[in-house]
Amino acid sequence: MSINAETLWETISKLKQQAPLVHNITNFVVMNSSANALLALGASPVMAHAEEEVEDMVKISGALVINIGTLSQPWIRSMKKAMQAAKDLNKPIILDPVGAGATPLRTNTVHELLETASPTVIRGNASEIQALVSEDIKTKGVDSTATSDSAIDAAKALNQKYASAVCVSGAIDHIVNGEDYIRVENGVEELTKITGMGCTATAFIGAFAALNVPPHHAAAYGMATLGIAAEIAMANSCGPGTLQTHILDVLYSLNEQQIKDHLKTCS
Amino acid sequence: MSINAETLWETISKLKQQAPLVHNITNFVVMNSSANALLALGASPVMAHAEEEVEDMVKISGALVINIGTLSQPWIRSMKKAMQAAKDLNKPIILDPVGAGATPLRTNTVHELLETASPTVIRGNASEIQALVSEDIKTKGVDSTATSDSAIDAAKALNQKYASAVCVSGAIDHIVNGEDYIRVENGVEELTKITGMGCTATAFIGAFAALNVPPHHAAAYGMATLGIAAEIAMANSCGPGTLQTHILDVLYSLNEQQIKDHLKTCS
Amino acid sequence: MSINAETLWETISKLKQQAPLVHNITNFVVMNSSANALLALGASPVMAHAEEEVEDMVKISGALVINIGTLSQPWIRSMKKAMQAAKDLNKPIILDPVGAGATPLRTNTVHELLETASPTVIRGNASEIQALVSEDIKTKGVDSTATSDSAIDAAKALNQKYASAVCVSGAIDHIVNGEDYIRVENGVEELTKITGMGCTATAFIGAFAALNVPPHHAAAYGMATLGIAAEIAMANSCGPGTLQTHILDVLYSLNEQQIKDHLKTCS
Repeated sequence: MSINAETLWETISKLKQQAPLVHNITNFVVMNSSANALLALGASPVMAHAEEEVEDMVKISGALVINIGTLSQPWIRSMKKAMQAAKDLNKPIILDPVGAGATPLRTNTVHELLETASPTVIRGNASEIQALVSEDIKTKGVDSTATSDSAIDAAKALNQKYASAVCVSGAIDHIVNGEDYIRVENGVEELTKITGMGCTATAFIGAFAALNVPPHHAAAYGMATLGIAAEIAMANSCGPGTLQTHILDVLYSLNEQQIKDHLKTCS
Repeated sequence: MSINAETLWETISKLKQQAPLVHNITNFVVMNSSANALLALGASPVMAHAEEEVEDMVKISGALVINIGTLSQPWIRSMKKAMQAAKDLNKPIILDPVGAGATPLRTNTVHELLETASPTVIRGNASEIQALVSEDIKTKGVDSTATSDSAIDAAKALNQKYASAVCVSGAIDHIVNGEDYIRVENGVEELTKITGMGCTATAFIGAFAALNVPPHHAAAYGMATLGIAAEIAMANSCGPGTLQTHILDVLYSLNEQQIKDHLKTCS
Repeated sequence: MSINAETLWETISKLKQQAPLVHNITNFVVMNSSANALLALGASPVMAHAEEEVEDMVKISGALVINIGTLSQPWIRSMKKAMQAAKDLNKPIILDPVGAGATPLRTNTVHELLETASPTVIRGNASEIQALVSEDIKTKGVDSTATSDSAIDAAKALNQKYASAVCVSGAIDHIVNGEDYIRVENGVEELTKITGMGCTATAFIGAFAALNVPPHHAAAYGMATLGIAAEIAMANSCGPGTLQTHILDVLYSLNEQQIKDHLKTCS
């Protein structure tokens, strides 16, 4: 079974109706922008990182999104606790290994998190995904040093080891999950000039995963929805500033025709 | 004495002239957006949360705004210290119990803060306010599960116990303070699709409270000003993205006629 | 040698080509907006504050930007560690003493940071710069209580003590470095109504410093580029909301003619 414009639109409609609670333990840079994007999409975002409350928050949430963009020890402890709780309660976990490959702290932390609980979906750029498999890959801060194509093998290796659907994002997004493969080609280049758009895509995957669609479908829906919104918004934008603003408008009023006109995916 | 367009405009003008320093100990999600909204309104925002400096910052500020949206223990300690300092110096304290009722940490922390010092104003959505009075109420993350009308009794109970003016915000805002009651009906539905607009309203109440108007007036002014700005901005917006941007523009250039044309309140 | 439109444009072009990695240990309020501004300008921003990774991140970065806007002890420790690493590796350090003069914690921390390593450039408003030299100066939160002219002597004293180029920003920006002096007159008043624009200017100085231009040139380029972008963006804006959005668009598509038409500097 593959995804198509009809199933994507049905799922977006369901999302807007149910407004699933998405629990984010994410980085300081994107908290505001991810929350706004989730709201515009139709989800109900909450950010909570205290060790004393993450288990309680996971309990009432539809999905847990873990993003290591601005790590420190107390946050790492909370991430582990939240992931363990999500695992125990069988709730979807989405992991964004921001900057894996840039510093040992980031790479090592991701390995520790992966040992704590297998994520439902892992989404990263090519360097980040490759750095989780090979020590030779160096990420330039949070920016990839490779194209997404180059990381497909690493994605397959990660998928085999942790049974997580893995999404390598870039100009083209590659999603692997066992025998399944989905390719998403939506988006515009200017997205790379807005901070945290990858993080937002990860949060969207969490929102879709909360609806209990298959993991690789959730990943494809998240990537495609953000990419489509960016394409529509770009027609009306002059650069990364207006683009970011208009993406929120487009997400809020997205309709079936737009999905049909824009979705570019194959599997 | 009730509020009206004239007193509101006079107070806004005074705010823009005096630019009171508003000390926020607030959550990571809204720090940027609240600071921008306070600046556009005419106040001088400062964010400071270190235990070592909150007392010094309270000393030079016109009001203290406490918002528990992304709690952790060091922040809780600083909030208490700051509230104690504000109490000792007789400075207005505004409390936003974000997500009270969602987790025990949040609900319990609010109770501890309320024991530390009675806030001048408490502003929350219906679930949050009810959760402070009854353990049966569950908040969906930071989103209310009830209409603001349903929380008026809880607001009255809180007001009686702590002598704080209490504002239950929603499509209609209800403000109670002893015998006084003010109802504000400004705003647009799209505000709920922008993260932290409740937090911004709370910050605005802080800015007005810094001018030493009666607590329930400060609450009504804060809610009405944000609601009016949203109504004016919405005429020119296509969704939550452009709305948030335009609200800042409108706040910056707000004039008396706009207040007269839009204010919808009764008491 | 002075700066002019040609050298500025050459340097901006180089920046857009090389996309230097700029490591920011900055405050919670501006993380998102500074990252977006650096991306629009053409740099590659990363935010990382954990004691365990700051040295590793400095190692791969072109410049280190330290901003004390929302201090606490763990962050102070990381700032020192990162500055020491940058000093050892001979990488440019840019220091923004946000709110120095508002509380002893801020003023004292800046003195400690200055003892750890001499910054390449210090950028602050008039109160902040004066507070580092005289205890009599009080900053109103993060807002200056003086004009930039009044702080030139303090800037010279700081420059002599630490050999840092010092930039006092305001309606006019004054940059001193030994015998060198540059004055930048770009910008619009509405910039003061957007939070963190000073912090963004500091981050820009970091991006230019990563290209190894002389410290006072990096400072002038940073201030002028943001000021010019604001002037161009303002023509198309209705207030601080649209201005902030449009500045990002303008930065992204900046061209030589715009620099030539707008640069206002003398030395």
